[in-house]
This record gives sequence, structure tokens and C-alpha cells, in this order.
Amino acid sequence: MYIRILGSAAGGGFPQWNCSCQNCSSARAGRPGFRPRTQTSIAVSADGDSWAIFNASPDLRQQINENPALGSKADGRLRNSPIKAAVITGGDIDFIAGLLHLRELEPFTVYASRRVLDTLAANSVFNVLDGKAVGRRELPFDKPVDIEGPAGPLGIRVECFDVPGKVALYLEDAAGGPGFGTHKGDTIGLKISAPASGKHFFYIPGCARVDAPLASRIQGAPLVFFDGTLFTDDEMLKQGLMPKTGARMGHMSMSGPDGTITAFERLGVARKIFVHINNSNPVLDDNSPERKAVEAAGWTVGEDGMEVRL
Amino acid sequence: MYIRILGSAAGGGFPQWNCSCQNCSSARAGRPGFRPRTQTSIAVSADGDSWAIFNASPDLRQQINENPALGSKADGRLRNSPIKAAVITGGDIDFIAGLLHLRELEPFTVYASRRVLDTLAANSVFNVLDGKAVGRRELPFDKPVDIEGPAGPLGIRVECFDVPGKVALYLEDAAGGPGFGTHKGDTIGLKISAPASGKHFFYIPGCARVDAPLASRIQGAPLVFFDGTLFTDDEMLKQGLMPKTGARMGHMSMSGPDGTITAFERLGVARKIFVHINNSNPVLDDNSPERKAVEAAGWTVGEDGMEVRL
Repeated sequence: MYIRILGSAAGGGFPQWNCSCQNCSSARAGRPGFRPRTQTSIAVSADGDSWAIFNASPDLRQQINENPALGSKADGRLRNSPIKAAVITGGDIDFIAGLLHLRELEPFTVYASRRVLDTLAANSVFNVLDGKAVGRRELPFDKPVDIEGPAGPLGIRVECFDVPGKVALYLEDAAGGPGFGTHKGDTIGLKISAPASGKHFFYIPGCARVDAPLASRIQGAPLVFFDGTLFTDDEMLKQGLMPKTGARMGHMSMSGPDGTITAFERLGVARKIFVHINNSNPVLDDNSPERKAVEAAGWTVGEDGMEVRL
Repeated sequence: MYIRILGSAAGGGFPQWNCSCQNCSSARAGRPGFRPRTQTSIAVSADGDSWAIFNASPDLRQQINENPALGSKADGRLRNSPIKAAVITGGDIDFIAGLLHLRELEPFTVYASRRVLDTLAANSVFNVLDGKAVGRRELPFDKPVDIEGPAGPLGIRVECFDVPGKVALYLEDAAGGPGFGTHKGDTIGLKISAPASGKHFFYIPGCARVDAPLASRIQGAPLVFFDGTLFTDDEMLKQGLMPKTGARMGHMSMSGPDGTITAFERLGVARKIFVHINNSNPVLDDNSPERKAVEAAGWTVGEDGMEVRL
């Protein structure tokens, strides 16, 4: 199985258009150790030829241009793309906006939870993906699905499961009820496998808590991509960037007793890669003590263009 | 007045994600003379400090990163942007999708026709631009409006006028009635001026026909940016790319008796720049006979990053 990180930053990317925090200013100035990152997405292929993308980031056009494996091939067919499916894990702008890049009548299949499909259906802009070319299929919970492109199965199996999280910001219940109107299917994790090789891994780019069902699911996994939004829950408040904690945004933090590093300590996951890293996160500085601490705990900080083979 | 071309390609950009025509393959391979282009947008400033963007292309995040004048400034305010307004000329994806890049509670003002504002309102994804930070104002027809950012006027005046065109693809009337459901305000042109200097120019990135009212409006203008989608009306059919003519897509062509070059011949426009250039257009090859012909007729083929001062 070929896995490629197309983007590794949280919503807004790194640098973020309107942010001049130390991280963003350093990335914008090209300072060494502050590598720019586009918004989180991975591409997966069983054969190195046909690909499924997992989430469609607003940066998708740039990501395709920067990853030749995903570009159209000069193979005699004037219009073609190796992207045969897009699997969406939530309704956030950084997970769905990239679908708008995939217009032009190229056939592929969109997979998402019922909640996300309803959001796409309720927004006419997504009708630019002509239904005759682009199928939309519901990902059921806890039931393996063999992902299909327009010409059949891609050799990639996906199992979708609900994880603790929060509904997308623009869909929050203005009344501020419990969970801001969050429902099952608003934040999902995926087990992605290649039946032919028997390999598998997990992709969980947003998660508010490693609860017991999630812990038992990923116990002993060979590879997990996981929500690396914040290092500490209140870092955006402390830096004066935004009056919200990670918990309020539906993201657990890397550090602390309730953090991801602690939660994974006893799970025996062989390879752990943070993605969806917010511009406020000190691990984006290659030389920060937080970066060293994360790496000392056995984690990799994801980077755009990183490749993993299973 | 400072004018900067952020992007100069038509919808899909150049290369287009799923296209392996000769132009796109050459651009993707980095062949000399085939300069990649992002989707059409220009930025305008009266003072070189505060900017209005005209259309918000899906490539806007990349465009901001590639144009430091539009980036956040390390001036002590952690969150800031020189982009104070976005003026939208139509509901097409390549004109509006970039608004989704401008989330994160940064104040600015969106100006558009009533038709486009209705489309934004009908699509909940655009609610990610919090109404408390981002105002939406209607551009009336044929009435000059002083564009305002959150802190007041930008010194840029805009007059909006209807031009022959077509409603956005995803909003077309499926019944296929006359004009596919096109209404006034679906395609607009803009006269953009800086009252302090008395300078002005026209921005018309989509246009189906130079009719008498449009001709008399732009007669003798110092500068016009104009729809450069196709060189010949049937080039997409002839290249086997898509079964639609330019006329069907609401775009007039550069060449021919009904084309733009002929239409402008007697208008005395001092500087003429093509933008919104489709990947099928042979002028994208710097060394093509069509490129030479266009330049010999006094036109400039727009490029990303090009600057004009008036």
C-alpha cells in the first residue's frame, strides 16, 4: 500500500493567510526549520497507479501539482486522472472544499457519512460535480467497504467509525446546546486496508478524546495518522490568537495527562504520525523543545510529501 | 493605483487537474514557454497597503503565499491581513470558491450582485465567514460605489454593469430554457477607479459579446482586462476536450469576425490584457503563431504576478 501525505496542516494551512504569529511569520519568511504545509489530506493506492484521496482540502489543486503521481497522465487519453475516489471524514471546510477543484466531468466516487452527504446535497455549489460523472456513496458505520472508482474496486477497503469530536464550525447549533448540535458521523475515523496484501492502518485527522472503544480499536496497529492540532489545550488563548481551547474546537492536545501522547502510551502502535497540525503548534518549529519531546515519545510530525509504504 | 494579476487562467487553472492536452502536458512537464497559471483574480490597491481582490479564486491561498503584498504582516498584531474587500463578478466556482480560504474571523467586506449574494446565502458552507466579521454588500448596477473595508473606504471606486454572459454551470436551468436560466447580474463587468488619482480601468473576466452599450462604455479606456477563455469558438471540440463551444459556455473568442480582437479594433483602448485563459487556448504557448497574432494585435496575454500601475 502506498500512502502519501498531501497536506499536514490544520484548517487555514501553514502559514495561515491572516496570521503573523511567530510560527507563521517564520514560515512566510522562509526561515529554516519552519516548513510550510498545506491542509491535511492523504492519498492511498494499492497499486501505485489508481489513488483514493482521504479528505479534499482547499489546497487540493496545489497538492496535485506538487505530487506528480496524482496528475493527469499523457497516455493518449486527453482527459484522465489517477484520482478515482475521495473519502471524506467530516464536513469541515478543510475536508470538503477541495471537491470544488475536482470539477470538469472527470468520473470518480465520493464516499462520506450520511451527515456529510447531506451537507454536500444542501450546498448547490457541489452540483458542479455532475452526478452523471461523480457518484456519492454513504459510508456505513463499522462495516468494511471496498472503495470503487468508476472502473471498479481500487483494492482499498475502508471501515468508518464514529470518534469523539464536534460538528463543523459553520454547522454549529447557534443555540449552543450540548455538543453544539454534534451528531454521530460528524467526526469519523477510518481503518484503511489493502486486502490483497493484508496491510492496514488508521486515519483519524480529528478527534476529541481517545475513549475505550477507540483505544481497543487501534491497539497494536502498525500505523496511525492522528489529529495533531494543538500541543497544549490553551495555546491559542495564551498566544492571543483566538479565544477558544482545543477542547472547544473538538480537538485533543498532544501533551498533558489527557493528551494524545499519554493516551497512546500503552496502545503499542508501531508508527504514529501527527497530521492536521495547527499553525499555533510549537512542533512546527523543527528545533523547538516541544518537537523534540514529541519525537522522543515516538511520534513523527507529518510533512507534506511524506511517503509511507505498508 | 496598483494592480496585480493573482491568477490568469480560466476555471481549472493551467494545467487543469484532469487534462493531458498538449498545453497541460507541457506545463506539467515544465517545458519552456508554457507558464503555469492559477485561476483568474486581480488585486487592486490605491495606496499599496490595503487591497481589494476582484474574484476569489479556488487558488487564493496559493496566490496569497506567492504575492507577499497580500500576506499577513508581522507588525505586532497577531492576526491581520491587507485584504480588506473581495468584489465578486459572478457565481462561478472559480470566482467564489476562494472565499472559503478567507475564514478565521478576519474582517473584510464582500461585494457582489444580488444574484451572487443569493447564491452565497443559499450555500451554508459560506457561513464559515462569520457575519460579525465579514459584511456582504450588494453592488448595484450602474452606480459607483466606494469600496469599504472594515476600517472605512479603500480609495477604490467600483461601478458594476451587466454584460452578455451566462449563469454559472451548476446553476443552469436543467430545462434548458433560453439562456439556461441566465438573469441580469449573472455576469458583470466592473469599472474600477481611484478617485484620488483620477485613474480608472475595466475588469471584464467573462463576456459573451461586445454589444453596443459595452463598446461605448470602454471606448478609449486606458486599460481593460478581458475574457480570454478561447482563441477559437470550437477549439475544445476540435481538440476532443469537451463537447461545448465557447458561445455555449458564455465566452466570446479572441479570433474571428465576432471575436474580441476584431471587436476592440476601433475602441481605442490603450492597454488590453487577456485574463481567464482556458488551458485549451494556443496563446498559452509563448511561441505559438496564435500568441504572436494576439500580440501583433496589441494585446497582452496575462500572467500570474504581472503588475500594472496607473
